[in-house]
Amino acid sequence: MGGLTVLHECLVNFPHEDFIYLGDTKAFPYGPRSHDEVRRLAFLNAGFLVEREVKLIVVACNSATAVALPELQGAFDTPIVGVVMPGARAAVQATRTRRVGLMATEATVRSASYQRALHVLDAGIEVEAVACPLLAPLIQEGDVFSERVEDAVREYVAPLKQAAVDTVILGCTHYPLLTPMLRRILGPGVALVNSAEEIAREVVEILERKQIGNERQREGSYTFYATSDPEGFRTVGARFLQLPIREVHLCGGENDPCGEIVGTVVRDG
Amino acid sequence: MGGLTVLHECLVNFPHEDFIYLGDTKAFPYGPRSHDEVRRLAFLNAGFLVEREVKLIVVACNSATAVALPELQGAFDTPIVGVVMPGARAAVQATRTRRVGLMATEATVRSASYQRALHVLDAGIEVEAVACPLLAPLIQEGDVFSERVEDAVREYVAPLKQAAVDTVILGCTHYPLLTPMLRRILGPGVALVNSAEEIAREVVEILERKQIGNERQREGSYTFYATSDPEGFRTVGARFLQLPIREVHLCGGENDPCGEIVGTVVRDG
Repeated sequence: MGGLTVLHECLVNFPHEDFIYLGDTKAFPYGPRSHDEVRRLAFLNAGFLVEREVKLIVVACNSATAVALPELQGAFDTPIVGVVMPGARAAVQATRTRRVGLMATEATVRSASYQRALHVLDAGIEVEAVACPLLAPLIQEGDVFSERVEDAVREYVAPLKQAAVDTVILGCTHYPLLTPMLRRILGPGVALVNSAEEIAREVVEILERKQIGNERQREGSYTFYATSDPEGFRTVGARFLQLPIREVHLCGGENDPCGEIVGTVVRDG
Repeated sequence: MGGLTVLHECLVNFPHEDFIYLGDTKAFPYGPRSHDEVRRLAFLNAGFLVEREVKLIVVACNSATAVALPELQGAFDTPIVGVVMPGARAAVQATRTRRVGLMATEATVRSASYQRALHVLDAGIEVEAVACPLLAPLIQEGDVFSERVEDAVREYVAPLKQAAVDTVILGCTHYPLLTPMLRRILGPGVALVNSAEEIAREVVEILERKQIGNERQREGSYTFYATSDPEGFRTVGARFLQLPIREVHLCGGENDPCGEIVGTVVRDG
């Protein structure tokens, strides 16, 4: 689901492109899974998209990017970009005090890939990383304005305030839905880096430099696949996408969760 | 409800201030009402806030601003700002071709207040104004991602595309919820002016210049009043505010819709 915040940025910033979105709803959440397991799922998902002859793949998940991006890039010919480096770059650009906070899933924090990316760009950056295991499931389940969510956010944010960071990376694609709450709690002196926005900037630059962008006058299409519960994907997804989701195809057989189209759910009216 | 998009911008941009929000849910929508009627309601609402000794009033409704702002400013000592001029100013700053589109309610378009404000700032601006009577009620009712909403948006936007405007003012506080859809349909070459964002910038400048801002370390409070159906306000409102709404006070007697607190609805759990 979280990847829909990335798709949102892409759809509003380059409406002339066509998109295929694969939501691995069956395996959500990736955050607490082992690295091997996330890698296996990432390969299945990328293979599904390569078969559909896409011109570029965005790994719109921080956990999958953190754990599997280099292997994916090594294995496929299609250009593949992940969400970690663009977010790290924006944070390095934004920070004045060189104290940067990271909020992410356990898998992402454990992989240390943000910490490495930040240090590749500026070896003098101090990173305060907070694993926020409750946030992605709570956001996906339902009401992001509930007291449970607010309490969890305040608890996770406390060490970042303590460390006096001036920039916080939202290192999970679910977290942009919490932006208003985080802006209030962290205050206007702290810059928030939305990895969804940053990957969209990266994609538009790649399309331009590789000269593989569509002509700008058209309005493109967007198509959805989910590995389970397409109806749930459709209804919950609109909150993340902030755009209509008309139909969702169910994909996935027993042994190949993404190879085969099983069914389609279409919105009424 | 639409005013909550203005409150949203204020809450995230200056979290150290306290806010009282009055939603005149009983009289919604203002768009099709007569100017006299909108003026009468605006006076009742402003009086309610003045009694609570606020330091600044934002008329967070384009229809009320368009029709009643000068009279309100003449009648009360409290500083009162409206949403029209900040949006007009942003549009004049943004346009390169000096062809500006306006989407607004019937009352706002009929009042010609955006057209006047734009011409006060730049007499050479061409304005293409489109009354969008269906949009605010559809957005308030429910699903902004439905085909009905998308069809209505495409119809209202057609004359703006025809006129080749390069800037569009969202002249109703409900419309920010349609931003993603409008960005896709209008394309990246058209700047959208969100009057909620612009009034928030205006308010922060006023607080600074008048030196009436709170100290920046604190986190402020926000309190809600509605003139009918506080429970409906609470549940629908979160979509607009994008922040928790914990309790809503019902205000309004028979003859004075806002003078008296009648009851309070508090969120469960």
